[in-house]
Amino acid sequence: MKIAILGGDGFCGWPTALHLSAAGHEIHILDNLSRRWIDTELGVQSLTPMDSIQERTRVWHAETGRRIHFHLIDLARDYERLKSWLAGERPDAIVHFAEQRAAPYSMKSDRHKNYTVDNNVNATHNLLNALVEIGLDAHLVHLGTMGVYGYSTVGAAIPEGYLPVTIETADGGAATQEILYPSNPGSIYHMTKCLDQLLFQFYARNDGVRITDLHQGIVWGTHTPETRRHPQLVNRFDYDGDYGTVLNRFLIQAAIGYPLTVHGTGGQTRAFIHIRDSVRCIEIALENPPDRGGRVAIFNQMTETHRVRDLAGIVASITGARIAHLPNPRKEMAENDLVVKNGKFLGLGLDPTLLRDGLLSEIVDVAKKFAYRVDRTRVPAVSAWTRDIAPLLDHDPEGLRLRSVS
Amino acid sequence: MKIAILGGDGFCGWPTALHLSAAGHEIHILDNLSRRWIDTELGVQSLTPMDSIQERTRVWHAETGRRIHFHLIDLARDYERLKSWLAGERPDAIVHFAEQRAAPYSMKSDRHKNYTVDNNVNATHNLLNALVEIGLDAHLVHLGTMGVYGYSTVGAAIPEGYLPVTIETADGGAATQEILYPSNPGSIYHMTKCLDQLLFQFYARNDGVRITDLHQGIVWGTHTPETRRHPQLVNRFDYDGDYGTVLNRFLIQAAIGYPLTVHGTGGQTRAFIHIRDSVRCIEIALENPPDRGGRVAIFNQMTETHRVRDLAGIVASITGARIAHLPNPRKEMAENDLVVKNGKFLGLGLDPTLLRDGLLSEIVDVAKKFAYRVDRTRVPAVSAWTRDIAPLLDHDPEGLRLRSVS
Repeated sequence: MKIAILGGDGFCGWPTALHLSAAGHEIHILDNLSRRWIDTELGVQSLTPMDSIQERTRVWHAETGRRIHFHLIDLARDYERLKSWLAGERPDAIVHFAEQRAAPYSMKSDRHKNYTVDNNVNATHNLLNALVEIGLDAHLVHLGTMGVYGYSTVGAAIPEGYLPVTIETADGGAATQEILYPSNPGSIYHMTKCLDQLLFQFYARNDGVRITDLHQGIVWGTHTPETRRHPQLVNRFDYDGDYGTVLNRFLIQAAIGYPLTVHGTGGQTRAFIHIRDSVRCIEIALENPPDRGGRVAIFNQMTETHRVRDLAGIVASITGARIAHLPNPRKEMAENDLVVKNGKFLGLGLDPTLLRDGLLSEIVDVAKKFAYRVDRTRVPAVSAWTRDIAPLLDHDPEGLRLRSVS
Repeated sequence: MKIAILGGDGFCGWPTALHLSAAGHEIHILDNLSRRWIDTELGVQSLTPMDSIQERTRVWHAETGRRIHFHLIDLARDYERLKSWLAGERPDAIVHFAEQRAAPYSMKSDRHKNYTVDNNVNATHNLLNALVEIGLDAHLVHLGTMGVYGYSTVGAAIPEGYLPVTIETADGGAATQEILYPSNPGSIYHMTKCLDQLLFQFYARNDGVRITDLHQGIVWGTHTPETRRHPQLVNRFDYDGDYGTVLNRFLIQAAIGYPLTVHGTGGQTRAFIHIRDSVRCIEIALENPPDRGGRVAIFNQMTETHRVRDLAGIVASITGARIAHLPNPRKEMAENDLVVKNGKFLGLGLDPTLLRDGLLSEIVDVAKKFAYRVDRTRVPAVSAWTRDIAPLLDHDPEGLRLRSVS
């Protein structure tokens, strides 16, 4: 297949591009390289030394003989270029990672809120609009988030996108129907993914666009078999308070002798998936496109759930790190249960890489190897969800203002 | 109260500004005047001769001694100016009409789809973002649409925004909870109003913004007691295929001897409200703000429902006009029932102006008075919902290609 990977220079996009290239597909990366600009803005860098996209694709070619083509296109800002590129190349499938993807970054200031909404909504809408305009029947696979799910769990497992509900009818009877799971996003970033869902629903129904939306959990790990092939193919690894995600952050914190920063009680249950499984899920989704019947296919892309404090405990027991309890910058429930259905990917052959499989130590090795590159001042989470929360944030979790250290 | 009316130069905004000014409020109109630019783009004009906003407000002052202040601000494009204006003036309430509001215009081309999404989402988000950023606890009243409601009617009346549903629990039992009514928008325009709903839900929950969302039906009529006070205070009246709405279009078609253009079977049931009731509903909503509990208040702002073909029949019987059945440019069900709850406004004192109250003839008078200004070539609906529908549209409903004339 000829596959366009939008946002193919990012943390999920790059290993996906390599994996699909290795599998024999013709890969085109479209990216505006905004993630590299945000590193510059925040004054942070990937823990792993990351070459330019041009250099990375050159190394991939040298290693494998396979070409990955790169096109500098801004989806959100340059509709006409996107449209002509799609009309000229007519890919069979499109994988869409090209959105601002950090919840803390999206809550950082009013400018960051506006940027995230404007960028993400216009990127997704421009893409859908262009597909219809040029009559291109490509399968669109979108990376969404588990964070679109809302309040309506009533203790039941979260289904894959659609929820059967019973509604009282006019005559006092009852009728059951399936609805898009009611959304209740926890940040501006997550909200843009809920907006995406409605865009997908509309374009699938009105124009028959074939869309698969993947509700992904928190990705951990950094290596895939393909990124391991050469040091210059290494994936990015974010450890800062905005882009670093919880498990990878604990591991780098342990590696540099920083306390593991648990926000609130750590009773938040999150869904996880290893990066190796993430790229495999994309491949499975591409192999199983939905029909043109107007219904978006939705998969839960996660393999296990854990409470944040339990993860901290696991990392502490492996590494001897101490745990620091800090105020939670997010507005969310202190404790929540989370049970998620993921039978669709398992049924299609996904063989999960779980925490217990021992890859945590692999990340500890990465973290230790590059620990000299860490800027400790960038480790704390500093983006507050509300004006009330902001003053509570402790910007010095290594120091004396810790509420407790265990 | 000091009230900001965003989009106060438009069809609903202008009579609302006059009505609230007459009621003694301090009124500030913020508008980018985009609706006048769209008239220019489409080569159409209001049936009623419409003065500049500056001249209209001057006449209002001369008639009543009351000032309406006008500020040229583009909500979607000029966040910083909006924020400083709000921070400086700190209105008690904000009425938000400032969105592209025509479904056919939103489906006209890929450029129009992009414009509608970009403009409407950023306008609403910029406003919410600015309110939180400057800590302004103003009550936000937003004009939404009945078009956000979706498939989940199962024959029951459409509730006011929220739907109680029963969900199966983990232990096989059942639990009832209330969800935002599942949306199923019929056009890009309607979809942007669904996106607005999620923005409102997030900002109400995360930041406690007090929001009232009004799901309005199709507005008919043109005069309010205030617009009648002087010829230069007249409201705009759209008759073209993009901005004209069904009942007003039938009346102007009758006045100029054009066939009443019924799309498809005319079996679509729509909700309606007279412009006099619309401005009164805004006033009632302003008088009844929600608390800061994080729940958006939602009202259905309509007073009656009718099938399109029945409306055509009423207008034909009053005026002697003939009826032309044309292909439907929209992708929608040919026939639908629609029962809508509107008890909240009725309970707060709305006294509906219904079709049977005789105001149809008032519009016929307006239409006849200004019939010399009509460009007959602009009457047909030419914006198709899909590429399949476009070739079916008859651009000459006066001529020989009519499918049937009754």
